[in-house]
Amino acid sequence: MVVVMKPGTQQREIDKLVAQFQLQGLTVGITNGVGCTILGLVGDTTAVDMDKISINEHVERVMRVQEPFKKANRKFHPEDSVVTVGSAKIGGGNFSVIAGPCSVESEDQIIEVAQDVQKSGATMLRGGAFKPRTSPYSFQGMGTPGLDLLLEAKAATGLPIVTEIMSPKYCELFEEKVDVVQVGARNMQNFDLLKEVGRMSKPILLKRGLSSTYEEWIMSAEYIMSEGNENVILCERGIRTFETYTRNTLDVSAIPAIRRMSHLPIVVDPSHSGGYYWLVEPLALAAVAAGADGLIIEVHNNPSCAKCDGQQSLTPENFDHLMNKVENLVSVTGKTLVK
Amino acid sequence: MVVVMKPGTQQREIDKLVAQFQLQGLTVGITNGVGCTILGLVGDTTAVDMDKISINEHVERVMRVQEPFKKANRKFHPEDSVVTVGSAKIGGGNFSVIAGPCSVESEDQIIEVAQDVQKSGATMLRGGAFKPRTSPYSFQGMGTPGLDLLLEAKAATGLPIVTEIMSPKYCELFEEKVDVVQVGARNMQNFDLLKEVGRMSKPILLKRGLSSTYEEWIMSAEYIMSEGNENVILCERGIRTFETYTRNTLDVSAIPAIRRMSHLPIVVDPSHSGGYYWLVEPLALAAVAAGADGLIIEVHNNPSCAKCDGQQSLTPENFDHLMNKVENLVSVTGKTLVK
Amino acid sequence: MVVVMKPGTQQREIDKLVAQFQLQGLTVGITNGVGCTILGLVGDTTAVDMDKISINEHVERVMRVQEPFKKANRKFHPEDSVVTVGSAKIGGGNFSVIAGPCSVESEDQIIEVAQDVQKSGATMLRGGAFKPRTSPYSFQGMGTPGLDLLLEAKAATGLPIVTEIMSPKYCELFEEKVDVVQVGARNMQNFDLLKEVGRMSKPILLKRGLSSTYEEWIMSAEYIMSEGNENVILCERGIRTFETYTRNTLDVSAIPAIRRMSHLPIVVDPSHSGGYYWLVEPLALAAVAAGADGLIIEVHNNPSCAKCDGQQSLTPENFDHLMNKVENLVSVTGKTLVK
Amino acid sequence: MVVVMKPGTQQREIDKLVAQFQLQGLTVGITNGVGCTILGLVGDTTAVDMDKISINEHVERVMRVQEPFKKANRKFHPEDSVVTVGSAKIGGGNFSVIAGPCSVESEDQIIEVAQDVQKSGATMLRGGAFKPRTSPYSFQGMGTPGLDLLLEAKAATGLPIVTEIMSPKYCELFEEKVDVVQVGARNMQNFDLLKEVGRMSKPILLKRGLSSTYEEWIMSAEYIMSEGNENVILCERGIRTFETYTRNTLDVSAIPAIRRMSHLPIVVDPSHSGGYYWLVEPLALAAVAAGADGLIIEVHNNPSCAKCDGQQSLTPENFDHLMNKVENLVSVTGKTLVK
Repeated sequence: MVVVMKPGTQQREIDKLVAQFQLQGLTVGITNGVGCTILGLVGDTTAVDMDKISINEHVERVMRVQEPFKKANRKFHPEDSVVTVGSAKIGGGNFSVIAGPCSVESEDQIIEVAQDVQKSGATMLRGGAFKPRTSPYSFQGMGTPGLDLLLEAKAATGLPIVTEIMSPKYCELFEEKVDVVQVGARNMQNFDLLKEVGRMSKPILLKRGLSSTYEEWIMSAEYIMSEGNENVILCERGIRTFETYTRNTLDVSAIPAIRRMSHLPIVVDPSHSGGYYWLVEPLALAAVAAGADGLIIEVHNNPSCAKCDGQQSLTPENFDHLMNKVENLVSVTGKTLVK
Repeated sequence: MVVVMKPGTQQREIDKLVAQFQLQGLTVGITNGVGCTILGLVGDTTAVDMDKISINEHVERVMRVQEPFKKANRKFHPEDSVVTVGSAKIGGGNFSVIAGPCSVESEDQIIEVAQDVQKSGATMLRGGAFKPRTSPYSFQGMGTPGLDLLLEAKAATGLPIVTEIMSPKYCELFEEKVDVVQVGARNMQNFDLLKEVGRMSKPILLKRGLSSTYEEWIMSAEYIMSEGNENVILCERGIRTFETYTRNTLDVSAIPAIRRMSHLPIVVDPSHSGGYYWLVEPLALAAVAAGADGLIIEVHNNPSCAKCDGQQSLTPENFDHLMNKVENLVSVTGKTLVK
Repeated sequence: MVVVMKPGTQQREIDKLVAQFQLQGLTVGITNGVGCTILGLVGDTTAVDMDKISINEHVERVMRVQEPFKKANRKFHPEDSVVTVGSAKIGGGNFSVIAGPCSVESEDQIIEVAQDVQKSGATMLRGGAFKPRTSPYSFQGMGTPGLDLLLEAKAATGLPIVTEIMSPKYCELFEEKVDVVQVGARNMQNFDLLKEVGRMSKPILLKRGLSSTYEEWIMSAEYIMSEGNENVILCERGIRTFETYTRNTLDVSAIPAIRRMSHLPIVVDPSHSGGYYWLVEPLALAAVAAGADGLIIEVHNNPSCAKCDGQQSLTPENFDHLMNKVENLVSVTGKTLVK
Repeated sequence: MVVVMKPGTQQREIDKLVAQFQLQGLTVGITNGVGCTILGLVGDTTAVDMDKISINEHVERVMRVQEPFKKANRKFHPEDSVVTVGSAKIGGGNFSVIAGPCSVESEDQIIEVAQDVQKSGATMLRGGAFKPRTSPYSFQGMGTPGLDLLLEAKAATGLPIVTEIMSPKYCELFEEKVDVVQVGARNMQNFDLLKEVGRMSKPILLKRGLSSTYEEWIMSAEYIMSEGNENVILCERGIRTFETYTRNTLDVSAIPAIRRMSHLPIVVDPSHSGGYYWLVEPLALAAVAAGADGLIIEVHNNPSCAKCDGQQSLTPENFDHLMNKVENLVSVTGKTLVK
């Protein structure tokens, strides 16, 4: 941590602050210049509250030099983490594709889509039973019966299930029925939910919030990991910017940046990132080329009748077409497409 | 709703779509131009799913012409709503100030601050018992015992209590102990929580999400109202932009815009908007001048020892100083400062 | 400046870097911790290129601790600067209002508006002769003849003229005819233009770029000042955010922030900030309350026939009404409305 | 164009407006609903000023249904445009790489880098002679002598030259000496400059502004094209968002979006997008995979001594390594790498 003193601060005020840091067990280095003193603080600074220091009237600025996350930090865990779900693996050179409809609508629909995406190479099935919708008047998902339909599709195909949890009250149910628990973008900083899923035994797919920085996103993973669950998959799904032609803006730089900051695997959701079916392919391919560990893609057997997000869903045919390109590209990147 | 057909669409495709809308009970007006046909749809379009129309291969664009919210819509409720809490009123020309520390820390602290802010003219006490913190390693609030300390401060001063709820599991507790239930910015689209607080009898203070549009914000109020609780106070607390010199960017235009769109009262939180104590006064005054119905301000009796947000807290002296200016300004705006 | 070394960097690499800084005349303080070394650099660091240091393979991060601007910096010039234009003054407790149409359209129009706004208390006349329009097919302004009409309006009223320059080639013309030279938001980082207007003798009104930070904005003022022209007025006119209900988002925090960083006066343009006439009054009043030194407002005698920006222009009646409120509010803030 | 009337507007007001549109030669379709009337306008609406209509007191909203650009519009020019520079081609299935240092620094430097990038497969040389720098105290480029060094490098290698113009006053010089004229992000809406380069005979590489929408960007291309120069290459170089870990945020969706909206070729600058050398490769590959027509990359023979942007420059070795991957990937996408 670095503390910059205001120009003209008296020596005894600096001494007082230094003594205070030393009492906290820190080593303090002092750089004295004309009208500017810089304090360098090393040691375990995680317990030091930057905000408190910054309100000292003699302090001009406080800057952190170390990341505030530990368990998710690549510095302390240099090798890639690999998350295993059934026969699928994500991370550490393994590339997996999750696919399925935005929401579970009927037994026929979910089983048909599951079989289709499996045929094309997906190794996990996504599908929403509980849907976060902007309007209270929109379809809110089938709820618990939707989970059971997902289980039927799993029985029919063997594909593990990825689905979103929206409230801590469903943790027990999800622990029993679901293979990967998704925490949605809008709940990325629902800290009570993060703590609860941190006590589950299932891997968590943590979507990035619409306006969350990389650091905030990793800190949310840290919430989950600090409760004991270290199987976290990060999912970039587009951020909110001034550009409204696309639904969101895919931040493709998140892939190399997260790989540098953290050992956790990162997958990309090209469906929500763009918001239109014609954007899914170019964004999916861009994600693969930039080094993603997997993709999560919306596929519907009849997009024009989908109860939600039809405009960004691929048909099984288009998904199959895309998977051929993905397979090609994954092999170029040196990763292994898990099938 | 307006549907723009792609250039060159054949007449029978247009007819098919028109028939489909008519089956849904809508009136359809057709404007035919060279290479461009526009369909105007009127009637109850709330049941029409724009996304579904937009994936019709002959459709270029779909545009909504009416707001998707009803209960919160000023069009259907032209007069200002007034929320009453104890002797305080917010909205309809009534201006109230909520003040108190970021988090409840001790009996002495909360009672002392409550007495101080009351003396200066605040009519409600804020204080966090459950704290949403970016880091799992930061102070997470006192929890339930914090609520009891707030009740002691209420007993000592008569000030109603405003505090944040972070999980549906606390609804019963808050229903019993709290006067205004705050839903924080990070939970603005925690739809399960919105539905649950929509069944409470207490007024809800709904903070705007960091990157939520006015419409999304009002739709979240609509979630609460559609469950039966129409006592919603909107709270602007700064949005996230590219500018990082301030913690957030106060969107002062939200005040007149929300007043135009909705009948719900709107208050402003200048403490979180700016993030620094020296910004609180100018931002608070700007909010009053722009027509806000109230303010919610962080005040701590010893900011440099505050367990959180000390750098943006006012001392009781500075708060008193600010309240003199606020009182002056409120009277200039023609509103009544509730004391 | 602070340089953080990568964990595990060998001592001789650190020594090499330290020697390099000392050769540049800097004093270097070293803080050594387990797996983390921090270098504090003091002295004249303006000549040090942060980017160059940051590509040293042993360096983790470089952080500046001092602002990169000098002439505009309040630290080196604690008193407010006052810009004087005719009888008008902006800054140092003086509050002035600039008003007039978006663009000059005819002799009658500009003289009539000039007389109207003068009657209501404006002390400078704005009006565009050269207009920056998003589309090449939109009205581009009257050009040089527009300047002459502004001069006629000045002759009729005595009001000094504020108008926008779009190319260095007009500097001579503007030097001769114009009283305050406006550099628009889109040209805030047109560095060639900044240098040229920095050699003019007339005050410069420098609008903030749509996505410019406070620091970048002040650095653009620094460009002008470094060429010799220290009469710079900063103008906040709204920034671009994700919210599209308003044309731009007025960043009202810019007022106290700029006043803290710089001694230059700051005025606000509520017309472009909001983009709609019904937003002008609340935003103007918010700006006054937050401590602005002046306002620049679009007024048109017939907004529905305006050649541009009619939807955000006030009628002379509405402007008069607003000026009454502004006068009231300015007196409450302790400033003097220059009339 | 669509005009939505306010609820309760009287029929004669609607009639008046309709008549007014018909006088402008437009066909108007009227959809009447309870409390809502929608007017559909077809015909040549480019001359209709939306802003003027929107200030009619009976109008609730005006929405455009057609793009405001013509010459750059793919609808009126379905085939890809191809820009040819020497032996290089960009667009229509041709993929070209432009490479070179941020700024020209010396004869040795520019010739050496030119030879290096040519060896690795670049077909155009970039290098700044006039540099837009945030600070007036930073290196501003060599100016005209820099152009002559570029010409020497061209003589030595045959590579055409791409370099940035910052003021209309250099148009003649650039016409004579430069092969592709770059308009930088900060000048994307410097309309005077756009008009002037629109009269040049050389292709223009138009960078996207930091906070410009796709539409604004294409409208700036339209400025150039409307003056007669239709050889415009669009260049995505990252936009400004809330995320500050990277210098800018590469908007990879711009590639498929621009290809849908316009026939102009689009290239990507991964160096400025990310701001760090370790981001260049993943972002470059993402751009290729998403369908870009080319890349423009900063390469320096000694990045740690570069006069600017060293931290985002590749060494010739790293560039060569990247070009192998690019070549591989371009062939996978079905395009032809021009060498």
